[in-house]
Amino acid sequence: MHKKSVKAPVNIAVIKYWGKRDKELNLPMNGSLSVTLSISKLYTLTSVACCREFEKDRFWLNGKEEKDLSERMKTCLSLLRSLRYSKESKDSKLERLSEQYLHIVSENNFPTAAGLASSASGYAALIKGIAELYELDQSSEELSCIARQGSGSACRSLMGGFVLWKMGVLKDGSDSFAEQIASKSQWEDLRILIIIVSSSSKKVSSTKGMQATVLTSNLFQYRIKHVDFYIKKMENAIKHKDFESFAQLTMKDSNQFHATCLDTFPPVFYLNDISTSLIQLVHEINRLSKKTIAAYTFDAGPNAVIYFLKENEDLLLGTLHDCLSTVDGWSYKYNDIKLNISNDYFFPIYGKVNKVIITEIGDGTVQTSESLIDSNGYPIYN
Amino acid sequence: MHKKSVKAPVNIAVIKYWGKRDKELNLPMNGSLSVTLSISKLYTLTSVACCREFEKDRFWLNGKEEKDLSERMKTCLSLLRSLRYSKESKDSKLERLSEQYLHIVSENNFPTAAGLASSASGYAALIKGIAELYELDQSSEELSCIARQGSGSACRSLMGGFVLWKMGVLKDGSDSFAEQIASKSQWEDLRILIIIVSSSSKKVSSTKGMQATVLTSNLFQYRIKHVDFYIKKMENAIKHKDFESFAQLTMKDSNQFHATCLDTFPPVFYLNDISTSLIQLVHEINRLSKKTIAAYTFDAGPNAVIYFLKENEDLLLGTLHDCLSTVDGWSYKYNDIKLNISNDYFFPIYGKVNKVIITEIGDGTVQTSESLIDSNGYPIYN
Repeated sequence: MHKKSVKAPVNIAVIKYWGKRDKELNLPMNGSLSVTLSISKLYTLTSVACCREFEKDRFWLNGKEEKDLSERMKTCLSLLRSLRYSKESKDSKLERLSEQYLHIVSENNFPTAAGLASSASGYAALIKGIAELYELDQSSEELSCIARQGSGSACRSLMGGFVLWKMGVLKDGSDSFAEQIASKSQWEDLRILIIIVSSSSKKVSSTKGMQATVLTSNLFQYRIKHVDFYIKKMENAIKHKDFESFAQLTMKDSNQFHATCLDTFPPVFYLNDISTSLIQLVHEINRLSKKTIAAYTFDAGPNAVIYFLKENEDLLLGTLHDCLSTVDGWSYKYNDIKLNISNDYFFPIYGKVNKVIITEIGDGTVQTSESLIDSNGYPIYN
Repeated sequence: MHKKSVKAPVNIAVIKYWGKRDKELNLPMNGSLSVTLSISKLYTLTSVACCREFEKDRFWLNGKEEKDLSERMKTCLSLLRSLRYSKESKDSKLERLSEQYLHIVSENNFPTAAGLASSASGYAALIKGIAELYELDQSSEELSCIARQGSGSACRSLMGGFVLWKMGVLKDGSDSFAEQIASKSQWEDLRILIIIVSSSSKKVSSTKGMQATVLTSNLFQYRIKHVDFYIKKMENAIKHKDFESFAQLTMKDSNQFHATCLDTFPPVFYLNDISTSLIQLVHEINRLSKKTIAAYTFDAGPNAVIYFLKENEDLLLGTLHDCLSTVDGWSYKYNDIKLNISNDYFFPIYGKVNKVIITEIGDGTVQTSESLIDSNGYPIYN
């Protein structure tokens, strides 16, 4: 039996992906750009094994076997097998792993209930794990084309630092892949606070939401024509470690994305009153700081992701801790310095936040010796 | 002493006014179109008097004297006086009313706390009241140019039925006036339900909000280029009494307007979780009805205004009454017919609505013998 294990990170886009021009291939209507978060806090760990004795492809996710593999997952397995097959065809000494079934065991170290998208880190770990197992020679960029077909944003989780997913123009999607535009070392001081908020509302899945936006939002037509321009400005901000520009672009892109959701018909709502209160709080923090020290962004849900720099950690987290001190996830109490925020900003947020996660910019996928698969090829349950 | 009293209606735009190209003259960045609501439910009553003995212009609003007249109000008085003056110049027999001070007493029959904009009906009543007092020959269109300078949307409250406020292109604003595109009799069956929701959030005034949108929203640039097209479609829907189109255009315009508020930087929020729950409820009602029987629209606040037709009154109000039965404002219980709405849609709304107002399309301003000014020229308090 051959086994490999990989940890893959979560990524949070600062210029959002929204809208597919090809549903099958997950080809986007615009480019997107993300920051990879450190796997020291959030990751998917995936172990893959193949063996002549296995009788079918099997997949266990978070301790439970999935009865049927999704079409997207089958597509990824088939693409990876054909790469292995072509390698085997050129070298008769290689074992015919492409003919063997796979056992895949995957776990997120964050609860699904946290409302964090796990499909990006999940597919990145899957694709990278099998690529390692098959000893494929393809680059991360090439593998990202496969990850993209599992879940669009997964292509950005294969690399660390700052990652651009190029829109591409070709029909077969071969030019729509992720590439690292700067590594973590370019801006190591970048920190990320995730604020997990309570939500009772039924969520429209991002796949459904984006299709509806493409079909019905007029404002979206404006957005897709201008995203390239925002990406160029963002690349420049990253290159010059210009947090002011990085932050403004990040917040504006998040707002614009949610504006196109509201302009969708019927409208799609991901932000709720807690989200909008957090947005107003961040603006108040920046106003009182007399510069932009924090930048919010929201994916297809109510949770806030806030970018900041290490130099402002004490001030920002000290200020927020005042409002969220009873919440899980603080590593220590930030009581030393804080801004004098009016209670009006805190009031709508009190008791409405479930958890905070404090993390930082990180590297891409990594191989690990931790395995979720035992010597018989079955899940190890902790 | 000369006295006149006028009642002026509230109007609710179906294609919204948002953004000034001239702050002084209240010239809009785009045309807008509204429905005038019946004064049988909501109105501003304004009495005006002039008399040689009055010592200065004085203004009592909702039972309280305003210490200083606003600049906008002074502008309106001065424009009306100059029209009277030019009339007096041509006819020496006319009393020199333009040289006398005015006493103005104004009351809304709806509480300010209801969150309904009172400036539209307020300025319409003021302008029309003084025009009557001065026996001016100007048409409603001409007077609307003056009302516009008091409060933009006030120009649309001078007329009944369906009113278009033309954007205009001239620098002096003389081509930016309101005109009736169809009277109430064109579509007498049009009904309006106003749902007044609780809100604890501090509101950004529409004047401030729209200036921020003009300055910072990229999506707004798309909107203003396309509003003329929406207006043409709306005029067509009204001409053909095509409720389906009327409703879709109304809802989409409201959503697009609020999307540009979200795209403003910092973003401006007028909708809250109750508003978005009402939006989702209306879409669910239309889905279950298998046609569009209700159309929501939201001004710069969380209250919903819902347009519907008389033929669907029992079904729509019967359905909503189920969720809002404990709320003030129902004229009778609509228990006969209703749609079977899942509780999931009602749950976020229960207990969050203050009041409903059921009304219909109406006529413009009317003179009335009810006076708020006594024989000495001072307010009559009830």
